Amino acid sequence: MQPIFDTVAIVGPGLVGGSLGMALRRRGVGRRVIGIGRRQSSLRTAIEVGAVDQATLDLHEGVQDAELVVLAVPISAFEKLMGNVAASMRKGAILTDVASTKGQVIQTVTMALKDREDLVYVPTHPMAGSERHGAANAREGLFEGSVCILTPLPETPQVPLERVRALWESVGAAVHEMDTAAHDRLVARISHLPHLAVAALLQTIDEAEGELAGGGLMDTTRIASGDPALWRDICKSNPCQIARAIESYTQVLQRIRAMIQGGRFDEIESFLSEAKRRRDDLSGGTPKERIENSQSRI
Amino acid sequence: MQPIFDTVAIVGPGLVGGSLGMALRRRGVGRRVIGIGRRQSSLRTAIEVGAVDQATLDLHEGVQDAELVVLAVPISAFEKLMGNVAASMRKGAILTDVASTKGQVIQTVTMALKDREDLVYVPTHPMAGSERHGAANAREGLFEGSVCILTPLPETPQVPLERVRALWESVGAAVHEMDTAAHDRLVARISHLPHLAVAALLQTIDEAEGELAGGGLMDTTRIASGDPALWRDICKSNPCQIARAIESYTQVLQRIRAMIQGGRFDEIESFLSEAKRRRDDLSGGTPKERIENSQSRI
Repeated sequence: MQPIFDTVAIVGPGLVGGSLGMALRRRGVGRRVIGIGRRQSSLRTAIEVGAVDQATLDLHEGVQDAELVVLAVPISAFEKLMGNVAASMRKGAILTDVASTKGQVIQTVTMALKDREDLVYVPTHPMAGSERHGAANAREGLFEGSVCILTPLPETPQVPLERVRALWESVGAAVHEMDTAAHDRLVARISHLPHLAVAALLQTIDEAEGELAGGGLMDTTRIASGDPALWRDICKSNPCQIARAIESYTQVLQRIRAMIQGGRFDEIESFLSEAKRRRDDLSGGTPKERIENSQSRI
Repeated sequence: MQPIFDTVAIVGPGLVGGSLGMALRRRGVGRRVIGIGRRQSSLRTAIEVGAVDQATLDLHEGVQDAELVVLAVPISAFEKLMGNVAASMRKGAILTDVASTKGQVIQTVTMALKDREDLVYVPTHPMAGSERHGAANAREGLFEGSVCILTPLPETPQVPLERVRALWESVGAAVHEMDTAAHDRLVARISHLPHLAVAALLQTIDEAEGELAGGGLMDTTRIASGDPALWRDICKSNPCQIARAIESYTQVLQRIRAMIQGGRFDEIESFLSEAKRRRDDLSGGTPKERIENSQSRI
């Protein structure tokens, strides 16, 4: 493949950043990938697994030559890093990020870039990951079959946007555009709510009771093994939409409870049949295949 | 292995009944296994997969010679079957069942057996299964590493109880005794609540939104593929405990929502850390290993 970008700098080459670097390198999408991190040991891992060509602890040195800078750090790190990123990027370069909430992150980034009108920012959210983290768990195929959401700003120019879109498509993702608010509402419901719902389930069950549970509960609660600090950041960056999603969810639960207490078991069966149908429909393919086959659009 | 039982009759040789028959036969725990069902085609499958030695549509014929009768039918079928079962069982035989709630089932069974004081009833709940059903999905190892709960009645004599215990141990389960009420509270929390919580999650998320969801949501919601009619029965047979469990769960969710709306993100992180610790502890082995290694007892 013809490279889409010359030098790509990945700030935070962990699971997501490292997998991206690995895929860009192996597929020839980026000519050179530089990793920037805070710990020498993590950077060594990133080089060993083939996530980056070279690595540095120095943010300025790492980003200054890059045509594309990818921020793949926790949401809580944006505030601290952005000043230095804005000061170090070369003229006309593109900045993107992989944060899983967008409203607050976009505010932080655009604020920091207010004196750098030459730079273009394309907010993205690749919806791929796992409860593992770090470059040691990075893999080239992480984005294969996944969906990557772009939330361009009104002022985002078309050409850089298309280049970022091509980059995500080259690593196997289906790219979907939506506005920031719609994105944050969506992820509150399909990602943040399930995480909190499962954590709440574990906290409802006594520990000794849980020891008797079978494989069903194990599968259901797997995502609760995710990094608590990362999820704290997510909650902090999207509180209103998450609170709303929890409220909708508890309303559905109260409806189920009322059906059971009211002895309305036909309604329970219809409810469970509909849930089963939805779940079975989701089993039909990767998210990429689903949105490509689907007529429905968010 | 020396057979523990001579002739075993399994009424309803589906996933659970069929897997039990298969394990008893292959391990020589039952000398002869007879399957009783309602459809010739299901019985043919049960014979083909090796779940039973012989099969019949005639309940009376199937159970009359059995030393042990296992009721492996849906909870809603107990009422209808028990008269015939009580009338057909040979003198001094043992009756057991595999229903996943016990209070209501025990009432139905003991009522039907009131004129058969020679028969012994040992209520059991093997906590193994899957979202699949039918003898075609039966497998010898289904109970390996699982927990089987016995809820003996005050009048249950020791010798038959120990024989039923030995039977479940012979197919790989760890046997745990508790009283009926404790059992029904336990399963409402570790099994019924998770099922309903996941169904509610699917119904909270719009269908088009769900199409964008990644693997996390897929794993979390797998159990929602279970048979709605079976789960209707479960809800109907354990309504009070299930309603209570949903109430506890919604209280935990409201607490999380209050933390998020109140900006108490340190508390969110502690909460998620505790959930992660619990989930990681559960990954350490099968339910059988967990309860065997654990000091804690319900």
